[in-house]
Amino acid sequence: MTSTPAATRGPYRTGIRARARVVEAATEAFGRLGYRGATVQVVAEAAGMSPAGVLRLFGSKELLLNAVVDRWDAESTRLVEQVGGRGLAYVRALPVLLEEHAARRPLLEVQARLLVEAADPEHPAHDQVVQRFRDVRAGFAAELLHAVADGDLPPMTPADAEREAAAVVALMDGLQQQWLLDPEVDMAGALRRHLERWIAGAS
Amino acid sequence: MTSTPAATRGPYRTGIRARARVVEAATEAFGRLGYRGATVQVVAEAAGMSPAGVLRLFGSKELLLNAVVDRWDAESTRLVEQVGGRGLAYVRALPVLLEEHAARRPLLEVQARLLVEAADPEHPAHDQVVQRFRDVRAGFAAELLHAVADGDLPPMTPADAEREAAAVVALMDGLQQQWLLDPEVDMAGALRRHLERWIAGAS
Repeated sequence: MTSTPAATRGPYRTGIRARARVVEAATEAFGRLGYRGATVQVVAEAAGMSPAGVLRLFGSKELLLNAVVDRWDAESTRLVEQVGGRGLAYVRALPVLLEEHAARRPLLEVQARLLVEAADPEHPAHDQVVQRFRDVRAGFAAELLHAVADGDLPPMTPADAEREAAAVVALMDGLQQQWLLDPEVDMAGALRRHLERWIAGAS
Repeated sequence: MTSTPAATRGPYRTGIRARARVVEAATEAFGRLGYRGATVQVVAEAAGMSPAGVLRLFGSKELLLNAVVDRWDAESTRLVEQVGGRGLAYVRALPVLLEEHAARRPLLEVQARLLVEAADPEHPAHDQVVQRFRDVRAGFAAELLHAVADGDLPPMTPADAEREAAAVVALMDGLQQQWLLDPEVDMAGALRRHLERWIAGAS
């Protein structure tokens, strides 16, 4: 016997909304208090449900953390696609990405927090965050090699493209961190200016 | 009546050594567990004394935190002076600084941790860390303007020098963070390569 759409869609949708609400609350709480500092109780209260309800939806605090990182990942990917372009156009669009990030402070906070906490190999998100950084660097390196193929940048070895990609990712993360600490820092302006000089030197 | 040097020097020196031992233990503990996660008890045990002994030396956990940031500051300043040079020579020497940092993982860990935690305006080191970043950026901006005065970089406004300084500081912090997470990242190589291209574009 198959259930009718009407019978499943309601509770299914409610579950998705509840999960999204918990991930939202956990993003804020992990960003503010750190993963270890934020209890399931704190997250549950912010999401308007019981700790047991949160654990029923996610299984454990660690799996909730994975969901938070997945969400940050999905949101970043969406923003990057929205900024658009390939090769050098992509690199030139990165300051716009920082401007978008400035409107999402809780996401930046949780990202900065988890990045630091996950440096501990014992941290439950360690492997996930390490892998995410490798993917991000590889994605950037691919765009740089795309720019080389377009004739917009001089030839570089894949290893050098990886190094440049690490630098550009670092530049963005470091600027975001300065801005979180001190919102007077003009992060998009600093990135724009620096990248334009770097592009002039690279071409 | 004045005490003789022999009478004062001993205990005075013992106090300095004990303070240094506590700051060392606190650097490691705050770096690993975060400021809120690391208790005075944990720090005291690592330093081989009682929590009361730690509080007698520093007054409070917050003042101990200030001492940890001061130490990180003093150590960074010492390393920067050791790397040496002014203007463009200074900028070119920065990868050496990252190599020195790689040999001081606990200091990098506490720096990365506190940088993130102190973004919260309620954090006891907030003002100190914000001020430190402003000083570091101003110091970099001064070196860039020095390079301009030497004719090694084209003219730039002080506001643009500040933006470039923010970018270079970000680059170093971001690379250090990637390296903490994943020691396979070639942080000094990435900085060297990126800065050389940037210098070529700027000159």
